Amino acid sequence: MKIVRTVQDLRRELDEARADGRGRVGFVPTMGALHEGHLSLVRAARAENDVVVLSIFVNPTQFTEAADLSGYPRQEAADAALAEGAGVDLIFAPEASEVYPSGFATTVHLSGALTETLEGAARGGAHFDGVATVVAKLLLAVGADAAYFGQKDAQQVLVVTRMVADLGIPTRIVACPTSRDDDGLARSSRNVRLSAEDRTRALAIPRALAAAAAAVSGGEASAEAVHGVAAAVLADAGIEPEYLAFVDPASLEPVRTMDAPVLCAIAARVGEVRLIDNAVIEPVAGTEGGAA
Amino acid sequence: MKIVRTVQDLRRELDEARADGRGRVGFVPTMGALHEGHLSLVRAARAENDVVVLSIFVNPTQFTEAADLSGYPRQEAADAALAEGAGVDLIFAPEASEVYPSGFATTVHLSGALTETLEGAARGGAHFDGVATVVAKLLLAVGADAAYFGQKDAQQVLVVTRMVADLGIPTRIVACPTSRDDDGLARSSRNVRLSAEDRTRALAIPRALAAAAAAVSGGEASAEAVHGVAAAVLADAGIEPEYLAFVDPASLEPVRTMDAPVLCAIAARVGEVRLIDNAVIEPVAGTEGGAA
Repeated sequence: MKIVRTVQDLRRELDEARADGRGRVGFVPTMGALHEGHLSLVRAARAENDVVVLSIFVNPTQFTEAADLSGYPRQEAADAALAEGAGVDLIFAPEASEVYPSGFATTVHLSGALTETLEGAARGGAHFDGVATVVAKLLLAVGADAAYFGQKDAQQVLVVTRMVADLGIPTRIVACPTSRDDDGLARSSRNVRLSAEDRTRALAIPRALAAAAAAVSGGEASAEAVHGVAAAVLADAGIEPEYLAFVDPASLEPVRTMDAPVLCAIAARVGEVRLIDNAVIEPVAGTEGGAA
Repeated sequence: MKIVRTVQDLRRELDEARADGRGRVGFVPTMGALHEGHLSLVRAARAENDVVVLSIFVNPTQFTEAADLSGYPRQEAADAALAEGAGVDLIFAPEASEVYPSGFATTVHLSGALTETLEGAARGGAHFDGVATVVAKLLLAVGADAAYFGQKDAQQVLVVTRMVADLGIPTRIVACPTSRDDDGLARSSRNVRLSAEDRTRALAIPRALAAAAAAVSGGEASAEAVHGVAAAVLADAGIEPEYLAFVDPASLEPVRTMDAPVLCAIAARVGEVRLIDNAVIEPVAGTEGGAA
């Protein structure tokens, strides 16, 4: 496994791989601090491609809080060992000056509910501008056949998929299931910053998602009522969510009835750490809406 | 020569050309209404590439006046004949619905003087958003080695060059000299809309650029004084410019002294028709600024 720092070196390595007949490239963009969730993306990429590229770049433009950026864990040597163990061929770990050289002036912006709701509303419009711009750059730098993203960041998957379709970037976007610890907590690089007590409290987030799904299975069709069930689970653990939303899984527009698949998305601070999680809740058989 | 309407058909044609060993692709993006200026770009592309692609797309998002968009000349059959005669292999002429399908949400935006001065100030911020977004899409669709733009749209060349560098689109941007009629008028698709009388009056624009250059050659170093010389030429023809600007040719920041190459840029309405033109004015030998 090699580590490269520049787009020029990255492209040279990939050109050599193609010249060797290893032409199919899979790409896993990360901000480092790798965990089992990232490694599950690497394994998905490994299964479908000749070459697996993983990027490590803590992108400053998508952070809307300085403390969140400065506190974001950085551990490149450990990341490299984990990546190599999971089958990564090439790590692209650029400096910020390589990604945003002097005079950089370009932003890729998406308008509408995809970027303005949920994380966009909570973290500000600059968040998804930062995400869309850096992902566009990374996808164009790697020129991958497919790029692998975790469904934990469900909104990010939608934004990236829309951006890639809109600009015509010839990379397939693959959404992989959220990776969870045995007790159900969604894996996140931020979890290491939770105290032991907050780690236990944080389990109320996946419990709230499960309670919402159970309420729908039990026949509750009102999104407002299901919201109440999930909010109560969070409140029992002393967690007040930034948002607890029931939205269309494609448009992110709010829904009122649970008669079609609904994305339930949660963001909450547990102690000092901001966590997000989500689940798609399927309707009870026989209640699907529409003119069937 | 073939005409294709979809990105899928475009890529299939180019894949076939590459399979035939014709791998080097040159691209000339246009809004149609082809004239000798466009054909000079085609010839530049023809000289350096195996395959020449010309696009015809009157991009609605870069027009900030409905009348300018609806009045823009459209003549595809004549354009196809001219393009074929000049050596184009493939015309990409998509419908608006192919470029901007339902749900399209993405804008490529550049901030700073490059987009906010001159045409950006005169036509509004949406103009260069529209240009940058459609050019990014076209460059990604064609995947050309080089794309050819006319220096008449000097600011567009700078915006596109910056955008391509910022996003890392692997296409070289080539600026070609402004093509002029024998009497000096810069060639433009809009010239056909000039009355005979206005066509004659419009010659004051290149005369003003020449007068500015002559004043500098004659020793005038004050941009304000040179501005006065050029403005007088326009005023003699009854033309009040939207702007008559003396700016740095790379940053577009205003300059006060003519001691380095300066871009003189003019936009003016002549009758109903909005025209632009520009020239880079070289300093008199021995007056260059800086710590030489």
